[in-house]
Amino acid sequence: MKRVVSYDIIDDKRRSRVFKLLKDYGKWVQYSVFELDCKEQEWVAIEFQLTKLLKQDDSLCIYEICKSCSQRTLYKGNVLLQLETEKCNIF
Amino acid sequence: MKRVVSYDIIDDKRRSRVFKLLKDYGKWVQYSVFELDCKEQEWVAIEFQLTKLLKQDDSLCIYEICKSCSQRTLYKGNVLLQLETEKCNIF
Repeated sequence: MKRVVSYDIIDDKRRSRVFKLLKDYGKWVQYSVFELDCKEQEWVAIEFQLTKLLKQDDSLCIYEICKSCSQRTLYKGNVLLQLETEKCNIF
Repeated sequence: MKRVVSYDIIDDKRRSRVFKLLKDYGKWVQYSVFELDCKEQEWVAIEFQLTKLLKQDDSLCIYEICKSCSQRTLYKGNVLLQLETEKCNIF
């Protein structure tokens, strides 16, 4: 399942840890937004680690994106260039 | 159709304009992430205005979220408190 994960984390250290975790598994599309496309078992592990890292002051949104929705995702501006540069499959 | 709109805009004035536009139609869930749930005709107008506002340096992602996907959206941390405070329907 594809997912969009966005976060607002004020604490630099914690934000950096979340960033590194998500970078290992997904595509960094914006400052605090990642796209992940991983197997469910892998996602369970990622979500577990995210939950461990987060504090109550932090904010995290996880949007599941089915195949049909993913085909209608739109990108505007330099995110397109970024995704092309990374030679990623835009989902 | 429900949509998640996220943006990275360095220019303060332009970011503020995009913020104000999206605030009029959606829920502000994170620093640069909005959730919109509007009619297609309304969305066409919003997208037109967004496209007019954006420059090549800006980055915008629009994720369509179907009913099934929206039921699996997850929130962690203080975004829940924020949404409850706003008395919004979490989609």
